[in-house]
Amino acid sequence: MKEIKASLVGFGVVGHGILEVIKRKQPILRDLDLDLKVVSISDHTGSIMNEAGVDADCVLKDKTLEKVATSSMKGQEAIKAVDSDLVIEVTPTNVVHGQPGLGHMEAALSSGKNLVTSNKGPLVLAFSRLRKLADDNHCQFKYEATVGGTMPLMSLIERTLVGNTIYSIEGIFNGTCNYILTRMAQENISYSHALSEAQDLGYAESDPTYDVEGIDTAGKVVILANAIFGMDAKYSDVKVTGITQVTPEALAMAKKRGYVIKLIGEVPSLTVKPMLVPIESPINVDSTLNSAAIVTDLSGTITVTGLGAGSIETASAILSDIISIYR
Amino acid sequence: MKEIKASLVGFGVVGHGILEVIKRKQPILRDLDLDLKVVSISDHTGSIMNEAGVDADCVLKDKTLEKVATSSMKGQEAIKAVDSDLVIEVTPTNVVHGQPGLGHMEAALSSGKNLVTSNKGPLVLAFSRLRKLADDNHCQFKYEATVGGTMPLMSLIERTLVGNTIYSIEGIFNGTCNYILTRMAQENISYSHALSEAQDLGYAESDPTYDVEGIDTAGKVVILANAIFGMDAKYSDVKVTGITQVTPEALAMAKKRGYVIKLIGEVPSLTVKPMLVPIESPINVDSTLNSAAIVTDLSGTITVTGLGAGSIETASAILSDIISIYR
Repeated sequence: MKEIKASLVGFGVVGHGILEVIKRKQPILRDLDLDLKVVSISDHTGSIMNEAGVDADCVLKDKTLEKVATSSMKGQEAIKAVDSDLVIEVTPTNVVHGQPGLGHMEAALSSGKNLVTSNKGPLVLAFSRLRKLADDNHCQFKYEATVGGTMPLMSLIERTLVGNTIYSIEGIFNGTCNYILTRMAQENISYSHALSEAQDLGYAESDPTYDVEGIDTAGKVVILANAIFGMDAKYSDVKVTGITQVTPEALAMAKKRGYVIKLIGEVPSLTVKPMLVPIESPINVDSTLNSAAIVTDLSGTITVTGLGAGSIETASAILSDIISIYR
Repeated sequence: MKEIKASLVGFGVVGHGILEVIKRKQPILRDLDLDLKVVSISDHTGSIMNEAGVDADCVLKDKTLEKVATSSMKGQEAIKAVDSDLVIEVTPTNVVHGQPGLGHMEAALSSGKNLVTSNKGPLVLAFSRLRKLADDNHCQFKYEATVGGTMPLMSLIERTLVGNTIYSIEGIFNGTCNYILTRMAQENISYSHALSEAQDLGYAESDPTYDVEGIDTAGKVVILANAIFGMDAKYSDVKVTGITQVTPEALAMAKKRGYVIKLIGEVPSLTVKPMLVPIESPINVDSTLNSAAIVTDLSGTITVTGLGAGSIETASAILSDIISIYR
């Protein structure tokens, strides 16, 4: 049985999901000969640490660690102090300065700890630096959950499509935009009407800029460009148009001709814009689903679709990364 | 550099594709530290053997080995005689008695050789026996190409969705049927009209029974049931209805209500039948494409689509299996 001591950094919805999933999946982990223990959890209020493994039931009932913290250490300090092999970084993302995630990731890798994350910001800003830090310290660095949530993309390309040359990847990488465009087309309603519906349902933030202006999708395009195509792309290299100017009239006209309009991100061309997609195209998926068409030399075009977000779904992608490191 | 000595058994279109792909992908294999040599190729006319690796260019220009064979040994005899670590079995499939593939596979595994195949018949008839033979002899046994051609399914579930419990898999597993149903719906033509079109284009055999009666799809359902769900299913356990009774009228009526009709295989229910699929469903793909929706506990529903057949595409799935064994 291989013992894995994990430090969970970030305890929002994704952090809760991970703790829940690790608890629920102990039998499968044991079948794979893995003894995965969460020995510390940190958030902005402090950390709870236990060498024998934190008691998930005791921690999961609260939204923060405030009541159960056993240490006032946070972030980088806790990452360095705890005796762990693996850091799971799931703090809120920031695409301007990448913090606090970027500091956490650098602390983890420079301490020789493997790193798994769903946090896009640091990867958008500093992928090459993080990759180099991981290689220099002989650490594994996995980030399936940063693009397309539970939709498998990184591991699909690295594992299943290994041997193929990847020519391009295009798809729907933002569930909020997809929900809004789907509802506009279905009900012939305006952008602002569909947006408030999405906000009411919790699919869009009260300030939806990050999603609807294509910033989130552009970040994912940068991650794919750097991780899959070995480019050294920055956010500013991406030509971005959001969905705020899409009208129900345009959607109706597209429909008449057998098309839908979707916000499509594309690599290696580094573009994000509303595009006409044939109705019968495999990347045409509805509601909050994500999709990606991977164009290869040997396997033709492979398309995957799945839920782009969700606490348990994102946790599932993180668990898959963890297993791929230690199996 | 890890040396892999492979015996290729079967030299039809898939065999040619494999030789071509192994030749073309030497740089990627070397990057993965793999020195993959095809040391023997066998077909019904004999075998060509070369410890240093068979010269692909010299062999690829002919349809059989007749002119280049260096030995009259065939099949099982050649598998046992050649000093190889890996057998790639790609002879024509037979779902009644499984031969000659089944004998080849048993010879490979009982000689302690790893086995990769695209040949469905033996797996439909004797999956449990082959799996046990592989385990008893500490051999790897991989068969991604048997279901959905290049569409990743086995490795996606084993690698990327590891940690998930798989509740069900349903999808389009036969490109010939999908082509016929797509054309019937698009052009409002009869089954027999669409069938002859498919035959003209080489998508359907002159005797199309194997495809249109759902036999091929049922075989894939049996393989998925045994490989993914650990069932001990036989072909006779599958309730099968083919597509020959589907009418253009039924397709038109379905379309009016927002549906298409597709030949759907489903596990673990072990059914194959024409079913109504919502137009917007991710498994609704056109032409000769295959698709599969994998319903999981953590990741929700993941859908993959890709080309179900093709020489190079099938070879790509086989190459991916080989790499996953030796990497």
